[in-house]
Amino acid sequence: MQSFLALRAAIEADRLTAEAAVAQSLEEIAAREAQIGAFEALAPRDAALAAAARAGGPLAGIALGVKDIFDTHDLPTTYGSPVFAGHRPPVDAAVVAMARSAGATVVGKTVTTEYAFLQPGRTVNPHDPAHTPGGSSSGSAAAVAAGMIPAAIGTQTGGSVIRPASFCGVAGYKPSFRLVPATGMKTFSWSLDTVGFFAAGVADVAAFAAALTGRPLAVEPVDAPALRIGVYRGAIWQRASAAMRDAVERAAALAEAAGAQLAAADEPEALAAAREAHATVQNHEAARALAGDFALHAARLSPVLRETLEAGFAIAPEAYDRARALARRGRHIAGTLFADHDVLIAPAAPGAAPAGLETTGDPLFNKLWTLTGNPCVAVPGLTDAAGLPLGVQVIARFGRDRTALSVAHWLEGLLAAPARPATAVNSP
Amino acid sequence: MQSFLALRAAIEADRLTAEAAVAQSLEEIAAREAQIGAFEALAPRDAALAAAARAGGPLAGIALGVKDIFDTHDLPTTYGSPVFAGHRPPVDAAVVAMARSAGATVVGKTVTTEYAFLQPGRTVNPHDPAHTPGGSSSGSAAAVAAGMIPAAIGTQTGGSVIRPASFCGVAGYKPSFRLVPATGMKTFSWSLDTVGFFAAGVADVAAFAAALTGRPLAVEPVDAPALRIGVYRGAIWQRASAAMRDAVERAAALAEAAGAQLAAADEPEALAAAREAHATVQNHEAARALAGDFALHAARLSPVLRETLEAGFAIAPEAYDRARALARRGRHIAGTLFADHDVLIAPAAPGAAPAGLETTGDPLFNKLWTLTGNPCVAVPGLTDAAGLPLGVQVIARFGRDRTALSVAHWLEGLLAAPARPATAVNSP
Repeated sequence: MQSFLALRAAIEADRLTAEAAVAQSLEEIAAREAQIGAFEALAPRDAALAAAARAGGPLAGIALGVKDIFDTHDLPTTYGSPVFAGHRPPVDAAVVAMARSAGATVVGKTVTTEYAFLQPGRTVNPHDPAHTPGGSSSGSAAAVAAGMIPAAIGTQTGGSVIRPASFCGVAGYKPSFRLVPATGMKTFSWSLDTVGFFAAGVADVAAFAAALTGRPLAVEPVDAPALRIGVYRGAIWQRASAAMRDAVERAAALAEAAGAQLAAADEPEALAAAREAHATVQNHEAARALAGDFALHAARLSPVLRETLEAGFAIAPEAYDRARALARRGRHIAGTLFADHDVLIAPAAPGAAPAGLETTGDPLFNKLWTLTGNPCVAVPGLTDAAGLPLGVQVIARFGRDRTALSVAHWLEGLLAAPARPATAVNSP
Repeated sequence: MQSFLALRAAIEADRLTAEAAVAQSLEEIAAREAQIGAFEALAPRDAALAAAARAGGPLAGIALGVKDIFDTHDLPTTYGSPVFAGHRPPVDAAVVAMARSAGATVVGKTVTTEYAFLQPGRTVNPHDPAHTPGGSSSGSAAAVAAGMIPAAIGTQTGGSVIRPASFCGVAGYKPSFRLVPATGMKTFSWSLDTVGFFAAGVADVAAFAAALTGRPLAVEPVDAPALRIGVYRGAIWQRASAAMRDAVERAAALAEAAGAQLAAADEPEALAAAREAHATVQNHEAARALAGDFALHAARLSPVLRETLEAGFAIAPEAYDRARALARRGRHIAGTLFADHDVLIAPAAPGAAPAGLETTGDPLFNKLWTLTGNPCVAVPGLTDAAGLPLGVQVIARFGRDRTALSVAHWLEGLLAAPARPATAVNSP
């Protein structure tokens, strides 16, 4: 994989020009894209190199992949739907313009599921092309995992950053809700849609996010003896594969061996209830956010999306308000949980990437934290017996993004240390 | 003016067809638009009548004006800027699609200030063409006030619904934040942008909002002896004109005479601080939301917008976070205020519409409640010595939109009663 930090270090030390760095990424894309199918559209090579040559700022030299759910004025924007084939929005989405103004070169739009919902695109998992890369940020995760680009932008409404990061074995970071503007993203659910990022490792994704937002997000050293980690097995623990449960337990054991304070964090009933409320909030909002798309193009939507919008439109305001009240209560209770734990660790997905490309997997282990808005990081490093990646999810208090990233980075180091035990062998 | 409720009653009683109702509105537009300049674009007459003839649902027969800050797939969408001349978005904004699916006929896009910020459009005040109609929802308020249409959609980021409603002498309703989706509106500030509505009277605007959202918002009778009204003079009271202060005092006196419990509601310091935080939140977000517009088109933005975006971009995340913390605190304190008062009443604007079209007036009396997200209603009925309208603002607890509308309607009846005292004569 291409390390964001290594590239930036080489550029800052004048060992590499921004143009040469982007050229390297373009070569990797040329070599691997046909197999992976991570890109919906690619910028012309000349335009990308010219942009890189002009670029200044903390993201100069960074070949960036942007999920095709964000508007780009110079590249087609399809939102993963044939309805928008060839659509060219008049201006860039906020996060795209921010990345460009920090020097990034947008080398392509990455494949998204249809409207960032469930209907998959054509991207395969770089670790095994017979397996899904996850979704909805399929192309962003796979492009980083395949070593084509050092950073990519995605979104999460259910589990669309943390799950594909876990399936593809890269670092994924879902910031606190609204830390990064979603303006210019095709809205699915305005209470849930969250911009997120992918990079090779946790320090990479943190440094990328810091450069893009101007916020102090770079990872810091962790004071292990002062660190209180809650192992969040929750009401859904048994729905994770044995290999995934082993991965989380292994991370916990390594953290404890390294001096951190480990404790079980039981799932408050209010958080189990909030998880159940996610679908009601999401689908009620999607039916309204996409009312214009449905009115004009219902026949061109996938059956799963069309049926979800029809069901969502039938969710009465009263039911939606009750679900929002459960979400508010969940946010409050999540806050109290972080009085006892600096971070929680949990599965980043139910297991390794499922075989087949018909689905992108299940957001079961992510949607609660999307609804509450807490920052989450997918930590790469472990694999199952078949060599498929298993991500460990680190969750922190709302607004404590740097804590989530720093602890995730520390954990990543423990998982990668030479003395680490063999990876789990009892894959389901 | 055209009453939404009267039109709907005639249609439901089969005294008027939906097509004939829309034809009436089109005749009024044909007669008055040249003088008022409320529309940025008009639907072709044939298309509008054909849509009305097909329409079913609770908004059938309603000729609707949509602020040109919302996407429409069949009408140009300029966001009030030459940058977007002729722009035709691929699908309707959420609220537009919802209105159409409830039967409304979109007869035109109404004039907005540039990007719904400060730079005025060409609309004049129907009560005196030498005066501003207010902004940023200039055309929506003026089109209703001039009797051209029975309902219009606008937005408020500072004071862009309640202020133009006050200046134009119509009912304006800013719902609780996110009661109505802002998807497909050109984002200025994602924490503040709020969809709102205009109609001739309060019962009209409430019934329109109920039909559009499917929520129980229609006005209910008020039990006056049980009603606790706080007169919110606040830290900025003296910045309202004498006529406006008289208007609020008069409304309070009438309410008390009608049996309600009146009390002074002092402004908590946290709310004065939240008001001051509004600009920081708005401008930091605008610079990021519009980063793509700025990157491509800075030279074609008005000086006031360009300078605001430049200043906003320089607002560091830390300053923005402090402002957001003040906003959160303000929301909490606003909640405690409504333990003692069912509603607050306050000026809807600093006074009557200022002379001249160079500015659209000051959102000073509105921006706090946009930041806190409380529902607000502008109650029409009073005028100054020159005959220019003065609105009284009714504010309720977050989520208590029906209370705000019902009390506003009751107050509107008191202001309109034959026994009401003469209107204020000491205009500034």
